[in-house]
Amino acid sequence: MTATATAEYLPSQRARWAGGQPISQLMAHALQNPDLISLAVGFVDQETLPASAAAAAWSSLFQDPHTAAAALQYGTTPGHLPLREQLLARTRHADAADPPLALEQIVVTAGSNQLLQLVSESLLDPGDIVLCAAPTYFVYLGLVAGLGARAVGVASDAAGMIPDALEETLARCQRHGDLPRVKAVYLVPYFDNPAATTVPAPRRAAIVELAKRWSKHGRIHVISDEAYRELRYAGEDLPSPRVWDEEGDTVIVAGSFSKSFSPGIRVGWGLLPRHLIGPVNDQKGNADFGSPNLNQYLMARVLELGLWEPHLARIRSSYSEKLKAMLAAADLHLARLPGVEWHRPQGGLYVWVRLPGGLDAGLDGPLFDAAVREGVLYVPGEYCYPAAGEPVQRNSLRLSFGVQSCAKIREGVEKLARALRAAG
Amino acid sequence: MTATATAEYLPSQRARWAGGQPISQLMAHALQNPDLISLAVGFVDQETLPASAAAAAWSSLFQDPHTAAAALQYGTTPGHLPLREQLLARTRHADAADPPLALEQIVVTAGSNQLLQLVSESLLDPGDIVLCAAPTYFVYLGLVAGLGARAVGVASDAAGMIPDALEETLARCQRHGDLPRVKAVYLVPYFDNPAATTVPAPRRAAIVELAKRWSKHGRIHVISDEAYRELRYAGEDLPSPRVWDEEGDTVIVAGSFSKSFSPGIRVGWGLLPRHLIGPVNDQKGNADFGSPNLNQYLMARVLELGLWEPHLARIRSSYSEKLKAMLAAADLHLARLPGVEWHRPQGGLYVWVRLPGGLDAGLDGPLFDAAVREGVLYVPGEYCYPAAGEPVQRNSLRLSFGVQSCAKIREGVEKLARALRAAG
Repeated sequence: MTATATAEYLPSQRARWAGGQPISQLMAHALQNPDLISLAVGFVDQETLPASAAAAAWSSLFQDPHTAAAALQYGTTPGHLPLREQLLARTRHADAADPPLALEQIVVTAGSNQLLQLVSESLLDPGDIVLCAAPTYFVYLGLVAGLGARAVGVASDAAGMIPDALEETLARCQRHGDLPRVKAVYLVPYFDNPAATTVPAPRRAAIVELAKRWSKHGRIHVISDEAYRELRYAGEDLPSPRVWDEEGDTVIVAGSFSKSFSPGIRVGWGLLPRHLIGPVNDQKGNADFGSPNLNQYLMARVLELGLWEPHLARIRSSYSEKLKAMLAAADLHLARLPGVEWHRPQGGLYVWVRLPGGLDAGLDGPLFDAAVREGVLYVPGEYCYPAAGEPVQRNSLRLSFGVQSCAKIREGVEKLARALRAAG
Repeated sequence: MTATATAEYLPSQRARWAGGQPISQLMAHALQNPDLISLAVGFVDQETLPASAAAAAWSSLFQDPHTAAAALQYGTTPGHLPLREQLLARTRHADAADPPLALEQIVVTAGSNQLLQLVSESLLDPGDIVLCAAPTYFVYLGLVAGLGARAVGVASDAAGMIPDALEETLARCQRHGDLPRVKAVYLVPYFDNPAATTVPAPRRAAIVELAKRWSKHGRIHVISDEAYRELRYAGEDLPSPRVWDEEGDTVIVAGSFSKSFSPGIRVGWGLLPRHLIGPVNDQKGNADFGSPNLNQYLMARVLELGLWEPHLARIRSSYSEKLKAMLAAADLHLARLPGVEWHRPQGGLYVWVRLPGGLDAGLDGPLFDAAVREGVLYVPGEYCYPAAGEPVQRNSLRLSFGVQSCAKIREGVEKLARALRAAG
């Protein structure tokens, strides 16, 4: 007996940190109840996935045997040069030429998520701190926890992270002797997941300035997760926070074609301060020594053939209709419920709903049960709050409008309203 | 000045561990001297890359709009079910039904390398020990170093890791109080990279038995890296070490379509003991929550359409010719040089060459300079030795025959012979 017991697998510290992400429970619910209308899942719209654009790019690549062979061969760790050149030109166009950006500062990754991981590995030791909006992207919270690091929530409102609250949090860290452990501010400046907020230009400037000014014990980076940037349905594009980083030493940008083209092709990228080029490529070298070449050739060809812009126009139009359907359904069914509030996002895939103070939207609370009985699924807001800093708001939830049809979105919101009445 | 100095980036411990992999110097040499005949690079043969098979699978996928959309959508963290079903059936066919293997024990990864990383993250804490053949796969040594863990070399011969030497190493670890830190034995049982050895069945059995018997302070796993298994040009396929793991709790298998189909598609997989399913998927969830769906659909369709086997026949024939060319050139040019020895591999992509005792084949040694002057590049053997355990053999080198034509292979080996005469 003793021999068996001692021969057991002893999980590494990292395995223990990474274990038990709450979202898996939610996914189990979804799998067990396939008839539920899921307003939880963050997938993209199935109808507008770019099958013909991808096929056109493939045909173009594979009509030249030399190019086909190159796409099927190994590539380099930082990624396919023509794709990185396209990204460089497009970034310069979107955000002006300053601060200067060189090709070697661009690394291609398996979605923006891998970039977040490689950067976080390069910045964070166990016990280190990342300041995040409260609420923030729950997958990133899992990633930070998986490194044994700590996410600390900063108060945010309908315009995202509040600079004054960020400064207060930094000051508090300093008072507690924790400022040397603060390594990054994580920001989703475009159509935040989950809060659906867009950070206005003056706040972007202020957050970058604060990160620089408080870099007293080592560089505090701003990780700007721009995975949704291209999914804007109203208003004008804003410059990336990196344009306020004149020295080019503070802001890391994570970008992705997953939402804006295809998650199944799964090409993301990072724009890195020079001092992170080596560390991020070292981490990527150990993980996969370069993302699949085929996917990078395919995305480069999509861009070269001018197939991305028409796709973007198509999905913006489709998501815009879905967002309108969700907001109209919310106006119709939720507005009369006391204490139920949301704001109108300019883009992205989510609507964030605040509920009456005492109502727990969590998996074990009354609302979730009622929603499942009614036949609708959402992401409980509590998953999106860092464990420290701003208090967790259990009376909140995230609705996604990416996957469902307008009819199902309306139906789902109506079911949610019934669940709210039942639980309230 | 002080403000600037303290605001610098402080690399994480992981970034420091991962930094300065020696292989990047070698790659820089290759890039700076594109006219060199590289017998160093581990790429696959450009001529036999499966452009038409990949195109046929693509056409088949994309003729059905529903399937095309599914391939372009997100998938699940463990991977595409039909692909995993194919892998399950093929594994059962290759290695018999015992020990039983279930679908949930299979995870699809970005090449076998990502599987090695996810598993190593799940097993190893800083300071932990992996026992490896000396020499072994240098990328894995970098991966282990990147986790702050220690690779310890076990003596090996022309039949790979020597079980008696493994037991001696385990006993030495126990004497030094290090046995609780030994978490895994890393083995490349088929056509090892770099040593080109194949571990015979009795040794496979003995190594698995040793890992079990010495699991006194926690499970010692055997990580069986089978990336080259399909690249056999002589003799009969051997069962995976996992067939000697009757309890199914010891052996982890890493497989890959990178060498056997296309590294640009980059689909690998793992066969996991049940207790590692959760930890490996947790790590993968934080890295990329699933490999690109498109690539998995593509490989599943390649298998379904029966396109893999004809491709394997083609590359086996091509690589077999290249291996013969390399061995014939070695017989012709190297056999007369005193103290230069190699053995004849049954498969894989490499020939391992031992040199006279005092000759340093490293980047700063006389041979490497002479080889570059002659116009040929190899991988210095010293990169392939763990820092601890068996002593580093600087008088060794790895030759790859995957990429070059038979003519270039002959020319490269002749150049190497001239360099050896110049340096010796």
